[in-house]
Amino acid sequence: MAERENLAPLLRVLAGERVDPPPVWIMRQAGRYLPEYRELRTRAKSFLDFCYSPALATEAVMQPLRRFPLDAAILFSDILVVPDALGREVRFVEGEGPRLKPLIEEDGPWRFGDIERGLQRLSPVYETVERIKRALAPEVALIGFCGAPWTVATYMLQGEGGDKDRARRAVYQRPDDVDALLGVLVEMNAQHLAKQVQAGADCLQIFESWAEGLPPAMFQRVVIGPTRKLIDRLRELGVTVPVIGFPRGAGAQLAAYAQQTDVTALGVDTQTPADFVIEHAPEGMPLQGNLDPQTLVAGGEALDRAARDVLIAFKRVPHIFNLGHGITPEAAPENLARLVKVVKGQA
Amino acid sequence: MAERENLAPLLRVLAGERVDPPPVWIMRQAGRYLPEYRELRTRAKSFLDFCYSPALATEAVMQPLRRFPLDAAILFSDILVVPDALGREVRFVEGEGPRLKPLIEEDGPWRFGDIERGLQRLSPVYETVERIKRALAPEVALIGFCGAPWTVATYMLQGEGGDKDRARRAVYQRPDDVDALLGVLVEMNAQHLAKQVQAGADCLQIFESWAEGLPPAMFQRVVIGPTRKLIDRLRELGVTVPVIGFPRGAGAQLAAYAQQTDVTALGVDTQTPADFVIEHAPEGMPLQGNLDPQTLVAGGEALDRAARDVLIAFKRVPHIFNLGHGITPEAAPENLARLVKVVKGQA
Repeated sequence: MAERENLAPLLRVLAGERVDPPPVWIMRQAGRYLPEYRELRTRAKSFLDFCYSPALATEAVMQPLRRFPLDAAILFSDILVVPDALGREVRFVEGEGPRLKPLIEEDGPWRFGDIERGLQRLSPVYETVERIKRALAPEVALIGFCGAPWTVATYMLQGEGGDKDRARRAVYQRPDDVDALLGVLVEMNAQHLAKQVQAGADCLQIFESWAEGLPPAMFQRVVIGPTRKLIDRLRELGVTVPVIGFPRGAGAQLAAYAQQTDVTALGVDTQTPADFVIEHAPEGMPLQGNLDPQTLVAGGEALDRAARDVLIAFKRVPHIFNLGHGITPEAAPENLARLVKVVKGQA
Repeated sequence: MAERENLAPLLRVLAGERVDPPPVWIMRQAGRYLPEYRELRTRAKSFLDFCYSPALATEAVMQPLRRFPLDAAILFSDILVVPDALGREVRFVEGEGPRLKPLIEEDGPWRFGDIERGLQRLSPVYETVERIKRALAPEVALIGFCGAPWTVATYMLQGEGGDKDRARRAVYQRPDDVDALLGVLVEMNAQHLAKQVQAGADCLQIFESWAEGLPPAMFQRVVIGPTRKLIDRLRELGVTVPVIGFPRGAGAQLAAYAQQTDVTALGVDTQTPADFVIEHAPEGMPLQGNLDPQTLVAGGEALDRAARDVLIAFKRVPHIFNLGHGITPEAAPENLARLVKVVKGQA
């Protein structure tokens, strides 16, 4: 217990404790809504160059912490550094999002680069984690992350985001090839996360940004199965830190995800009622979320009311306050300052 | 009971009966996956002109019925004829979808055309319903429809589909104006549906295509409240036919929708497990859905297996077989022929 009292509040919650007021961090807290980030971003030619620069990425992580008393920092990187490291030509098109060479347009067997060499290409990411860790106050937890196998596979299969129709179709048409792809991503992401923890990450988050729209049998096959394997593999690699799973858009299937993947904690998206998650997640599982990001654009009374609704809804469980999705570029930094005050009971 | 035995199978299910094999129809069954539809479509200059031509719209409805032994026809029209009739400049851009003049870019009070005159503009739609009704065999049910107030409002607010961030933001920033807009749409849609029933529609479907991503308080305010009012208003207008509500993407909030809106039956999207709906919908509520549309592109074993999964999952409730979303242009007509055989136990 003495040990736990020295833990950062966010890590206490992840250990199953209710902390009042709850720790708070914000998905995409380092990002385009901050003018100082937009300035910093101009110093690298491409978004991936930015992610692979330990100096720039570390500075991006520290920017919001100078403005707001947040309880966690998250590595600045992208879930698509993994396909990039596997040799799949990732580009970020300004205002449109990422573009990859779509696997579904390749007839032959799908081939990927070597995992060992991929991890070497990602060494600047681990150096970034080390730098952030040195810069952080001990009460601020450092979160490492990756994309869940299905979400990363979706980008690789169809070459872009948008609707996931073509990725789902590939599961029907080439199930064995998709399983093999998911297997590669399980292994690569497990090693990628393990290296982040070796470099100093206190806990991890797996972003399943595209858990939506999947029939139950497919959700089992591409979301629950590979996520479970990823966590099993992490534990095999000796990683013991807590893992937050965030299957955005899982809807009613969030229940199965919470019960079957072995995640430590659950990220809850904007639309999912707290009562539903509390009822269906394993007893005492820490929950993270789930304020609507648009309240940080609107501000005012609407923000205060919505934030208090979230606080009340999750009051009886171990809770990490966050949004239900990333903060948007249109959000006003002063609204985030206000939000943190409301969460901390100072407004 | 004698009366009910003369009913079309789909209407028997909507009256609460389990029918085996279940009746089947397919969202967007009249549409671009059919070569004869693509040919027909060239005969009108714009998509709205097509919708407002009783001869062309009726022919589009009849095309799939000549190919497949389906249990229902649905009016060929669009949920956006309503804002069009309210004077809000609706255009359909080829390959991109609808474009409207966005209300959120208008500062002053939002103004709409008169409902009475709007309904007059829609008179070709009611003539279409009459023509379809005359052309249909009695065992084929005729479904009328409209967009739910929130879904139509979303298009009107932000001028297009895509993410619903700006529409949600408007609810935070201009709640009273959004409520007023929803009120106009409740009244207009109620009258629009009542006229379809007068013209011969046997039952109705309310498409809430954008039920996703809404925090619980907002879901109550913009989805459940206005849908309930729409149904109350329909009943006031003397309309007694069954109403299928289809809140696509509602996730765990489907439970509240099923319990609180007074819909007769529930459309279930692809990702929602049958067990979840059966558990949370009022006892005996007819359910419609929910095969993944991508199975009709993939075909083969994957289609057969997925179709049988759906049949089994809904076996113990009154069930209408359908997709969980509209059939896509890439679907093969022969796969739909196969699907109907599988559902009817002939394959």
